[in-house]
Amino acid sequence: MKESLEPVLERIGQDFDASTQRLLELLAIPSVGTDPAHHADTRRAASWLKDYLGTLGFEAGLRETPGHPIVVAHAGSKRADVPHLLYYGHYDVQPADPLELWQTPPFEPTLVEGTHGPRVVARGAVDDKGQVMTFIQAMAAWRAVHGDYPARITILLEGEEESGSSNLSAFLAEHADELRADVCVISDTGMLAVDKPAITYMLRGLAYFEVTIWGPRQDLHSGIYGGAVPNPINVLARLLAGLHDANGRVAIPGFYDDVVEPSAEELAGWAGIAVDEQGFLAEAGLTESSGEAGRTLLERVWSRPTCDVNGIWGGYTAEGAKTVIPSHASAKMSFRLVPGQEPEKIVSAVRAYFTEKLPSGCRLDLKEMGASPAIRVATESAFLQLARQALSRVFDQKPVLIGCGGSIPVVGAMKSLLGLESLLLGFGLDDDKVHGPNEKFELVCYRRGIEAHAAFLAALAATSVDAIKR
Amino acid sequence: MKESLEPVLERIGQDFDASTQRLLELLAIPSVGTDPAHHADTRRAASWLKDYLGTLGFEAGLRETPGHPIVVAHAGSKRADVPHLLYYGHYDVQPADPLELWQTPPFEPTLVEGTHGPRVVARGAVDDKGQVMTFIQAMAAWRAVHGDYPARITILLEGEEESGSSNLSAFLAEHADELRADVCVISDTGMLAVDKPAITYMLRGLAYFEVTIWGPRQDLHSGIYGGAVPNPINVLARLLAGLHDANGRVAIPGFYDDVVEPSAEELAGWAGIAVDEQGFLAEAGLTESSGEAGRTLLERVWSRPTCDVNGIWGGYTAEGAKTVIPSHASAKMSFRLVPGQEPEKIVSAVRAYFTEKLPSGCRLDLKEMGASPAIRVATESAFLQLARQALSRVFDQKPVLIGCGGSIPVVGAMKSLLGLESLLLGFGLDDDKVHGPNEKFELVCYRRGIEAHAAFLAALAATSVDAIKR
Repeated sequence: MKESLEPVLERIGQDFDASTQRLLELLAIPSVGTDPAHHADTRRAASWLKDYLGTLGFEAGLRETPGHPIVVAHAGSKRADVPHLLYYGHYDVQPADPLELWQTPPFEPTLVEGTHGPRVVARGAVDDKGQVMTFIQAMAAWRAVHGDYPARITILLEGEEESGSSNLSAFLAEHADELRADVCVISDTGMLAVDKPAITYMLRGLAYFEVTIWGPRQDLHSGIYGGAVPNPINVLARLLAGLHDANGRVAIPGFYDDVVEPSAEELAGWAGIAVDEQGFLAEAGLTESSGEAGRTLLERVWSRPTCDVNGIWGGYTAEGAKTVIPSHASAKMSFRLVPGQEPEKIVSAVRAYFTEKLPSGCRLDLKEMGASPAIRVATESAFLQLARQALSRVFDQKPVLIGCGGSIPVVGAMKSLLGLESLLLGFGLDDDKVHGPNEKFELVCYRRGIEAHAAFLAALAATSVDAIKR
Repeated sequence: MKESLEPVLERIGQDFDASTQRLLELLAIPSVGTDPAHHADTRRAASWLKDYLGTLGFEAGLRETPGHPIVVAHAGSKRADVPHLLYYGHYDVQPADPLELWQTPPFEPTLVEGTHGPRVVARGAVDDKGQVMTFIQAMAAWRAVHGDYPARITILLEGEEESGSSNLSAFLAEHADELRADVCVISDTGMLAVDKPAITYMLRGLAYFEVTIWGPRQDLHSGIYGGAVPNPINVLARLLAGLHDANGRVAIPGFYDDVVEPSAEELAGWAGIAVDEQGFLAEAGLTESSGEAGRTLLERVWSRPTCDVNGIWGGYTAEGAKTVIPSHASAKMSFRLVPGQEPEKIVSAVRAYFTEKLPSGCRLDLKEMGASPAIRVATESAFLQLARQALSRVFDQKPVLIGCGGSIPVVGAMKSLLGLESLLLGFGLDDDKVHGPNEKFELVCYRRGIEAHAAFLAALAATSVDAIKR
């Protein structure tokens, strides 16, 4: 590993200013995939990446979908006995609004001095253009030094991640033979701190619902009817309040039945992580956490299922007072799921809860809006061991295996459609303001990300194929 | 009474078609007081009434206010030993939307055949133009027969009742000497049925609030933070749910402390009222009532206090799914108050409830939006006895004393500013669709209303002044 890596790290250092300029160039393209006004810009970002990958020896092309194109690029030997790595990322970004809260324009990427040195401030800085560029720049340096790649490499970059990856699954299924690799490498997650590398191995799932309670046929005058008829807002509040017990646990019968508790080893590992709880909360303007009693902060956000109401509406909401009993009231709510919980069973349990608690005189609409299971990636795989080595080498510190409270649906798609485990190597920080104003990526994280991906290639090159190919 | 009334009733019958035409003419003026587009129309309705009252021997004028003018008209002897009646009504109407639900245009008053004969369908048919015209047409007939009125009569018609009577109190206070009478007669309430006359003697009060729960400083991603931070919608739902106990009673400590229960006689009187509960519920598209356990329907809407959430909003409410933990959530809510409850104590109790139940990590805004007490009018007054006689005479059935679940704030203003008891003689029916599409007034109710007001004048004429003047 050492022999092949040292000159690549040197090259990364020499080229780092240029790498940074390349990232700024990509960030200047406002590829807001969901905004029709940025349709052409979004395609331009895809073309920029395709063209740049072409200069690195990749056979790269834009593959059309009913939505934005998918960039697919291949390089390296296609011999069956060579390991095949599939790198996934996305070039679309979230809308930048509210614009007035940005200190610099979201699509005029700016280097700003922060506590960890310079950082890039721009929409997409870390999610996901900056992270995508960590592995692309690692490959650029590797190729400049060694002339070729130590593996067969496929890069797949989609333009619809921020809008639900609507066309990705069909594309994966259709091109399964072309894309099926030995592992999928994804850089879209985070670390614990600038100097604390991490590999994400557990992602929570999600079940999303919209519920509407119908009461009177039309809005009623609360003077005439108040006290004698069911008020759908009061009913909805009661049903939503009943979703939790006094200890912050979800009170739906059977909800925890299949939850797999983390092992003693996992918990011991988490206990060793020095979580900056105050910093985590301060980002949200809070000073104390809440939630399920008797659980640590990390358990609560990584391995415990939750229920949050995401939106609610009903009745009179304009200025002033109106004494109405509305005919209906609605809420959107979601449940984060953890390993063991089967989405279908949870959906049934949620439906049973609302159906059974509904008072007579009311009608219920419960719209199911998707349910996906939690995911654990294999922690004993050869690739994960190589990634551990690579991160240890670059950070001079062993990486920690961490959970992620959110979902990365592509991990599930890679598993179900291509049979691939994913390796989640991410370099973001909790305070990067993903999806928010003033999104940023620390340059030190960018550089270590590039170095880590190069070290991963070096570790792979130093390993016998037999140890990797199953 | 009989001698003076018979010819007036005859005259009312002869003139009834013309009376109906006059009402249709007034209803055709779209006096939507709150709509700037109908500003001139609203004034036109006031002028129409002023002009018409002028033809009936009234000294009538438009009195300017910062809002719409108040029609004030005087007639009859001004001698101090003559009884002085102040009639109150309003000429403004509610907005007519949703227009698409009207079967005939709201300002093209139409006679439609119903189960009780013809009815007028128009915005304002019963609230309050039709009811105002009952006493004006009674006076027209009385004057046509007798040449003068048996009392000093003042008519006050405002144009801002549907928008909170913003300028009425100041006007009453400023012109107290001119307006102070022996009783205030109001026709803006209802009967039990076409042939069941009623006098309303109890009105519920109202305390209105807007509550906002603040949690995180900004909206958060429910994947990253879900399970570890307070969600303001969940918190709000819990607080609102806690406002009621399992028996449908308001669960705020002290809420019922001062409630005055109706007397045994009152309850016995109500028990004798054959309430069409199914009809009442059918109007709301319901088949069963709900609310406080162990109370009759009439108790629940007349003499029991309530709590209804009138509006709620927070988080993501557009199409699709967004996994947000919102920074805040709000609701509007109101409490109907009953005799004995002091609005200030209720406001304090509501504030204490929310303050004490607020979980740590959240902040509370509780906006007080007005509180008025319940009202009982004197049931032993000479005027109420005269009204009983008058209604018995016209309907051939004794009137029932009834409550009203809503508030009529002018009743409180008449008492506090002019020291006047109110006599609530109303001729509406529960199914008149007040404030809704296809508002109507049965012509049989219109006619009996005119006759009842004439009979009231006749009863007054037959009574010695000493029995009335205090």
